[in-house]
Amino acid sequence: MASKGVAVVVGVGPSTGAAAARRFGREGYKVALLARKLESLEPVQKQIKDAGGEALAITCDAGKPTDVQAAFKRVQVELGSPEVLVYNTGPSLKSFPPPGLLETTAEEFNAGLACGVTGALVAAQQVLPGMVKAGRGTIIFTGATAAMRGGKGFTLLSAPSFALRSLGQSIAREFGPQGVHCAHVIIDGLINTPRARARYGDIPQDTALAPDAIAETYWHLHQQHRSAWTQELDLRPFSEKW
Amino acid sequence: MASKGVAVVVGVGPSTGAAAARRFGREGYKVALLARKLESLEPVQKQIKDAGGEALAITCDAGKPTDVQAAFKRVQVELGSPEVLVYNTGPSLKSFPPPGLLETTAEEFNAGLACGVTGALVAAQQVLPGMVKAGRGTIIFTGATAAMRGGKGFTLLSAPSFALRSLGQSIAREFGPQGVHCAHVIIDGLINTPRARARYGDIPQDTALAPDAIAETYWHLHQQHRSAWTQELDLRPFSEKW
Amino acid sequence: MASKGVAVVVGVGPSTGAAAARRFGREGYKVALLARKLESLEPVQKQIKDAGGEALAITCDAGKPTDVQAAFKRVQVELGSPEVLVYNTGPSLKSFPPPGLLETTAEEFNAGLACGVTGALVAAQQVLPGMVKAGRGTIIFTGATAAMRGGKGFTLLSAPSFALRSLGQSIAREFGPQGVHCAHVIIDGLINTPRARARYGDIPQDTALAPDAIAETYWHLHQQHRSAWTQELDLRPFSEKW
Amino acid sequence: MASKGVAVVVGVGPSTGAAAARRFGREGYKVALLARKLESLEPVQKQIKDAGGEALAITCDAGKPTDVQAAFKRVQVELGSPEVLVYNTGPSLKSFPPPGLLETTAEEFNAGLACGVTGALVAAQQVLPGMVKAGRGTIIFTGATAAMRGGKGFTLLSAPSFALRSLGQSIAREFGPQGVHCAHVIIDGLINTPRARARYGDIPQDTALAPDAIAETYWHLHQQHRSAWTQELDLRPFSEKW
Repeated sequence: MASKGVAVVVGVGPSTGAAAARRFGREGYKVALLARKLESLEPVQKQIKDAGGEALAITCDAGKPTDVQAAFKRVQVELGSPEVLVYNTGPSLKSFPPPGLLETTAEEFNAGLACGVTGALVAAQQVLPGMVKAGRGTIIFTGATAAMRGGKGFTLLSAPSFALRSLGQSIAREFGPQGVHCAHVIIDGLINTPRARARYGDIPQDTALAPDAIAETYWHLHQQHRSAWTQELDLRPFSEKW
Repeated sequence: MASKGVAVVVGVGPSTGAAAARRFGREGYKVALLARKLESLEPVQKQIKDAGGEALAITCDAGKPTDVQAAFKRVQVELGSPEVLVYNTGPSLKSFPPPGLLETTAEEFNAGLACGVTGALVAAQQVLPGMVKAGRGTIIFTGATAAMRGGKGFTLLSAPSFALRSLGQSIAREFGPQGVHCAHVIIDGLINTPRARARYGDIPQDTALAPDAIAETYWHLHQQHRSAWTQELDLRPFSEKW
Repeated sequence: MASKGVAVVVGVGPSTGAAAARRFGREGYKVALLARKLESLEPVQKQIKDAGGEALAITCDAGKPTDVQAAFKRVQVELGSPEVLVYNTGPSLKSFPPPGLLETTAEEFNAGLACGVTGALVAAQQVLPGMVKAGRGTIIFTGATAAMRGGKGFTLLSAPSFALRSLGQSIAREFGPQGVHCAHVIIDGLINTPRARARYGDIPQDTALAPDAIAETYWHLHQQHRSAWTQELDLRPFSEKW
Repeated sequence: MASKGVAVVVGVGPSTGAAAARRFGREGYKVALLARKLESLEPVQKQIKDAGGEALAITCDAGKPTDVQAAFKRVQVELGSPEVLVYNTGPSLKSFPPPGLLETTAEEFNAGLACGVTGALVAAQQVLPGMVKAGRGTIIFTGATAAMRGGKGFTLLSAPSFALRSLGQSIAREFGPQGVHCAHVIIDGLINTPRARARYGDIPQDTALAPDAIAETYWHLHQQHRSAWTQELDLRPFSEKW
């Protein structure tokens, strides 16, 4: 299997990030896995290697620009210039239902923006020059329902999600004509993760998004012919009300 | 190649409809081709048959409910119950730039609504009971930029396009939980058709949507796992301003 | 009180249309009241006359272009050239919760489009030449939540509502630079009408839209300086979830 | 003229903020004027005082939460509990056309978010408890075209603008039922400011938004009956393409 290029996934846990990394790994991409904690990365790295692929694990706090810059420098040196970037991280709610607006501190809010959108800007800046030079590349932002509506109690999620959506549009408009495909994917529903199963118990069949199904659409986005690129799409279980 | 099912494409000319029909034909679907004129259908029918597939050509005015009902009855009898419906027709502008609002007659406007959205309702009604019974099926509406903004001079296109978009959402909300995947695809740009090439001359590489590229995404929509369905996406050349 | 001009309200019942008519009447406008039934018009005509205003009642089926044309001819002859048009009619659901998509006939659907959007086109066509000549005028479309999302069972409402929204944008884009202000108002919530009170019983204070409050915003839209016009706004009770 | 309450305008220069401050001042509101520089505030304070109103000038960097908190404490002590908050500040582009995405540093981007959205959160947090206690209050966010689309080169504006829009929705959804009206106003066009006139020379009549016209709609928003509140509207010159 000849390597097709380098894919970087920022935000690798047991869910969408891992599935995307495996999907690109399966196609022969050398995959760089980034997350705050090494223990999030190791199982995915092992899955990819066991399947005959190549994976590099790098710990990195997406909310710290210098961390992100350093991580991408390692990717460049150890794997080469990325053809694919999946940005798949953001703030998470500490409690559910989420706290009211008055309980959200400016510090928390800024921390959410730092990893939810500033990190995406910095990550994109690391890969764009190489993609422009190559005349091709794909950047996928994992978005959320919170990118479409500011719900009660969801300020901490929706502010960075809205901002990330705008960033995806700005990148598409500036770099699309230079060959870079930037897509924003609105995940509208519960993802079928270990944490979701622990919190909600048994999830009726296919009523939560399968991470591998999300990854399949990410792969399709990367495969789209440049005469017909998608900038935005939603993904939602068949059973979801919306 | 065992037949996988029946796909119906309403609005088959030399562009998106034809490409969608070939794409599903290639996968083993028996394809029903509907258009107003037989000469639009015959070349596509031949392409599919030459490739070893099965295609049924039916003339039908999508703006006439009884025509649509009769056509789907033939599909049912001759091919079986449809698993896929692609609705790919609508009003077309007679001149470009289009006439002003004051030059648009109520008759033209109603005719545009009849084939742009009422036909889609009637077509969907013919296939939905079978899809619900089977617990699966895919309905794809070909939409347009005109579904997102009412532009100067585009009333004739945008009114049915907006309405079609709403219909797609209504179907998705009512029939998604019953297993029917309904997606609305916003084609935002010039499609690379014979007519476009005749009108605009040489089209720089990949700057107009390749019909086969559109069809590829239609096929992906049909392949999506039901835990992660897309209701709406856009398709746009890499070079497009928007 | 010197007359300021002519205002036409299409769709006058006991709710928004009546309130808009009274509001413009109060400001000295001669008001033409259009509705299918004379008994809808007479109480409003009386209210306006009792307050010292001038009102002309014309029966008219907004779904019939010739009816609409004839009504506006009468307005022109009896009152003069309209400066304001409020289009406030559309299909109504016969039952609630509404029927499923499979129970909606093409005839009902087309009838909904005829009065929900084609009537608005025809009405706008009657007033636009005069407004353009005067270099000023206001057209207000009463829209609904159904203009923003196609809900389960709401096809009959949402298709014309989406289409009407597109028409408002088209008019604004073509005729704004010629001095005509076209606004689309999304009424998102129950309106406090006699029928709503009959159906839902006691409505807690201010939790349903007061027609006079809606009319107040219509008046504001007409008063806006042409350097800062609103094309679209929503109106929603403080208590509404959305 | 009996004082009706306290209004706070964050972001007072020679344009929208000043006009809003004057508009509320004219109605008898005690107005607190906040901006980074005292010289931005003094002329507006003088205008309001000359017209017989009461105005308090406070320098404050909206991007610094502690600054914002301190400023609102002064407002509380010197004027009382605010009934109205207009948040009218955000990042500004240093050059035009704006720099590309690769020239935007994380520091600039974060500074834009700090004053464009975090400042709005902190300001809202200072006034919401008092508004909830009173059961009434109005919060208006001045938004921009950049809140609706992420344009090429506009990342620095659109990320905070999108995020601010989400914040407005979150506030409306959480605090609307408690009597607080939160509206987001999309200013889509050039505002007729001294700076705009210096940059673009003569502005043809009414083709740039008059600040006083914007303020008029802000006043209308505050006056809306709580059964019919607007959460979002656009303001655009009649001549604007969009």
